[in-house]
Amino acid sequence: MSDIEIAQRTQSQHIREIAEKIGIAEELLEYYGPKKAKLPLSLIDEQKVQEGKLILVTAITPTPPGEGKTTVSIGLADGLNLIGKKAITVLREPSLGPVFGIKGGAAGGGRSQVIPMEDINLHFTGDFNAIEKANNLLAALIDNNIQSKTNNLDIDPRTVLWKRVMDMNDRSLRNIISGLGGKTGGIPRETGFNITAASEVMAILCMSSSMENLLKRLGNIYIGDTFEGKAVFARDLNAEGAMAVLLKDAIKPNLVQTLEGNPAILHGGPFANIAQGTNSILATKTGLSLGDYVVTEAGFGADLGAEKFLNIKCREAGISPKAVVIVATIRALKYHGGQNLSELTSEDLDALEKGIPNLEKHIESIQSFGLPMVVAVNAFTTDTKAETDFLINYCDRKGVAVSFSDGWSKGGKGCTELAEKVVIAAENCSQQFKPTYDLDDDILSKMHKVATTIYGAEGVSLTPKAKNQLKRFNDLGFNNLPICMAKTQKSLSDNEKLTGRPTGFTIDVREFEIAAGAGFIVPIAGNILRMPGLPENPSSTKIKMDASGNVSGLF
Amino acid sequence: MSDIEIAQRTQSQHIREIAEKIGIAEELLEYYGPKKAKLPLSLIDEQKVQEGKLILVTAITPTPPGEGKTTVSIGLADGLNLIGKKAITVLREPSLGPVFGIKGGAAGGGRSQVIPMEDINLHFTGDFNAIEKANNLLAALIDNNIQSKTNNLDIDPRTVLWKRVMDMNDRSLRNIISGLGGKTGGIPRETGFNITAASEVMAILCMSSSMENLLKRLGNIYIGDTFEGKAVFARDLNAEGAMAVLLKDAIKPNLVQTLEGNPAILHGGPFANIAQGTNSILATKTGLSLGDYVVTEAGFGADLGAEKFLNIKCREAGISPKAVVIVATIRALKYHGGQNLSELTSEDLDALEKGIPNLEKHIESIQSFGLPMVVAVNAFTTDTKAETDFLINYCDRKGVAVSFSDGWSKGGKGCTELAEKVVIAAENCSQQFKPTYDLDDDILSKMHKVATTIYGAEGVSLTPKAKNQLKRFNDLGFNNLPICMAKTQKSLSDNEKLTGRPTGFTIDVREFEIAAGAGFIVPIAGNILRMPGLPENPSSTKIKMDASGNVSGLF
Repeated sequence: MSDIEIAQRTQSQHIREIAEKIGIAEELLEYYGPKKAKLPLSLIDEQKVQEGKLILVTAITPTPPGEGKTTVSIGLADGLNLIGKKAITVLREPSLGPVFGIKGGAAGGGRSQVIPMEDINLHFTGDFNAIEKANNLLAALIDNNIQSKTNNLDIDPRTVLWKRVMDMNDRSLRNIISGLGGKTGGIPRETGFNITAASEVMAILCMSSSMENLLKRLGNIYIGDTFEGKAVFARDLNAEGAMAVLLKDAIKPNLVQTLEGNPAILHGGPFANIAQGTNSILATKTGLSLGDYVVTEAGFGADLGAEKFLNIKCREAGISPKAVVIVATIRALKYHGGQNLSELTSEDLDALEKGIPNLEKHIESIQSFGLPMVVAVNAFTTDTKAETDFLINYCDRKGVAVSFSDGWSKGGKGCTELAEKVVIAAENCSQQFKPTYDLDDDILSKMHKVATTIYGAEGVSLTPKAKNQLKRFNDLGFNNLPICMAKTQKSLSDNEKLTGRPTGFTIDVREFEIAAGAGFIVPIAGNILRMPGLPENPSSTKIKMDASGNVSGLF
Repeated sequence: MSDIEIAQRTQSQHIREIAEKIGIAEELLEYYGPKKAKLPLSLIDEQKVQEGKLILVTAITPTPPGEGKTTVSIGLADGLNLIGKKAITVLREPSLGPVFGIKGGAAGGGRSQVIPMEDINLHFTGDFNAIEKANNLLAALIDNNIQSKTNNLDIDPRTVLWKRVMDMNDRSLRNIISGLGGKTGGIPRETGFNITAASEVMAILCMSSSMENLLKRLGNIYIGDTFEGKAVFARDLNAEGAMAVLLKDAIKPNLVQTLEGNPAILHGGPFANIAQGTNSILATKTGLSLGDYVVTEAGFGADLGAEKFLNIKCREAGISPKAVVIVATIRALKYHGGQNLSELTSEDLDALEKGIPNLEKHIESIQSFGLPMVVAVNAFTTDTKAETDFLINYCDRKGVAVSFSDGWSKGGKGCTELAEKVVIAAENCSQQFKPTYDLDDDILSKMHKVATTIYGAEGVSLTPKAKNQLKRFNDLGFNNLPICMAKTQKSLSDNEKLTGRPTGFTIDVREFEIAAGAGFIVPIAGNILRMPGLPENPSSTKIKMDASGNVSGLF
């Protein structure tokens, strides 16, 4: 059965009943149909936030289809509930663009899914749309100001880096010239669109601690410079009020359920290769206020999602996970050991052994944060006993807890062993995580520390352009912001072809972006696309609806 | 008090209670918070649709701020309820773009509003977003196909007229070059964005009779031609399934309430100068199935909204109004008589007399449809007794029913006289409306009949480009479609400077667009913008949110 068939055949509960399980009074729910609800920010209880046990699910360097972090997260939360813990999974919302491209849905898989998966994979409760509109209102205000006679802030159009966004895989919008058509069409300039998940407004929504904080961050967005070189911010255009109003519902976390009827909170969706790659601070805190355990994931490998989750999000929010789960798959490890993507279903112990250093590096990275961990071996039907024995022996020798995770075919039942090991790790964890860098470090040192400690690089090199930008950030007083590296997810290095555990490389930072509202500096290593394209055969062509409105072809 | 203050101070009812008043069982409601709900299409009862009394609210040629059709519609529905009729107002949803531009909100005004006005004026239930995404998915699929190696349909990019849309006043997107940035960025070509209300997908949603019909119409969208001149449709790209899935919730009408707690259905929002300018067929039918009276409006003056409402929508849906209300204001009539916009608050009987022929023409147009009518004098505090007496005497002499309408300051109580007169007209109406043209007429004749009968023109002239297009439509078999004129709303003619009742003019059709999915040919007369811009001082800069999320500055 396909994911959507499993999801559609599952008897789901009214979201009122799910809310009741975690003590939310019905009058606090804002329903979006019978299976989705928005939660008020008033549910956050800062004392419970500190008491709750936060579990971070991360992964080894993934192959293109991903290694199943979302599936493991959902399975683990269901497993924790099965062994008697009040657990909530708190995840990102999927982006619509990839649903129509290659990836399909992003709401888990098999017996470990969140539902209603059709809605979650489509417009859901409208959060992405609200973010898109807030982003694009600012863009329209900027261009309107540039061509205005009476309110002109003297913005130099060549310095404007704020792009429009659309939640669609649409490569044709990546680079455009806008403002054509003569005098009534504005001022022609080079610009482009990013996918909505890449918007700084998405990052801001996920970093905000309250409505008031949202408003302040929106006002702090750095737009570009005047012809005289003065920095211009969104607040200079009085943009933040209307932007915040557009986000007044989007800022509230969304409650749904797993296939097993356990609560799941989905909120925000920044990508991990270009942004912080994790759900909102408000959603994580809501989960911690309502459950004893919160299982959350951060995108791609531990070099991207986990690093940013800890150094950016947890530091800002004043929270710390009690344990980290590293998802590993036999197939991805063999891929890192040199086996071809098309042959990963065949046994190859030699490739597995050669690929294991990738896992080793991610284990060391989590150790650098001082956090306990469990390696979750996400089961595939093609894994052989010899292969899984090899991997488990490796972890045993290393002294790292390890467990099978079979949420995909068995749901929570396939994850109870993992759940038990996670509970042992979390209950014995008394320390806070140790950040990779201090906020007082200069930006170059921050990058150097992340590159060497987390990626295993020898250092960082900067283009002349990047060096000039660093100087500018210093002048603007942005030096004490954390960094949010934009780097390929396909390698520990910035070269996507270097699989396994590469050594002897440096990270080449081409340029920087400044997300002054979200509160971080974005060093860009290599060519990172912020607007994907559709493949030769888009998934969208397989999506069908019958006369009664039933959906098929989403997976 | 501002509109938003009145709205926020009104004690609203839970939408469950509103639904109960018109016999909708709670389990049929799909809540979007406590004040909005989507209604299932199963509520439509074709027999009741024929029995229900449909009242169309139209207007004289409006001044830029509008003459209050929405306010009159809401006031009239509240008035009908006060005199014991079960009445529902069925309206369009506002577009977000103008909210941030000049116009502000579009949910009525004063004591005649639909609430929650903040939500209705912002994202509401996400319908516009869904339409935008469906439109833009097709655009992405077209550009992806043009640059594709294996699925190439050989589409000539120069023939592609399908534009992307965004619900934002953003003139810089009107004309763009997309696909820049080299080989990975697609194929460079000239294109642009329209505002979402101008999307053919919006028109399709509002013309669809069912999910199945929606799917068929989406497949019928005409995209452009191959290099060999063969027509290409959305179905050739297998686009309609995913587009319909994106619209699976948007196709359902939305239930809200008036300030007086009466049911209001809002659904769809095509503009009347460039599209059919009225709410969806499904919403109108839902209203007729649930109430004895349905009050609906069609955009701008009777030359645009009412003509299209009758010749396009009612003909397609097999329905006919029982009475038409023509909204007239003293101020607009004086404007048509030559008074300056800034002086409309001063008494000027001479200008009023000179402006009345505009009303006369719209009365004659409604008479041409064979429908009974009531002129509603929408009251403004600056109207003088001498002026209103003059207007009422004029209608009396003409033998046309006339009534004050003061929903703005008094709500339903200000509209009971109007309600009584509408009931008399509707109860005495036994005939169906008489269309302006037959579907069998050729396209040129259709345009000629609308131009002469409705606009008072002497005829229609076509550019050579338009003539060539007509031939092409003939070859494609589109001759029996109705026409949907794109024309300025500021004049009965196609020249916005000709106020009053112009004579001796022709309608110059520059070119055509074909909306093969929506099912009409769009003759474009003059320069009609489909993507507005922001003004020098955008309304958005006045919109504020406080720390608790309360909104102000929407009006």
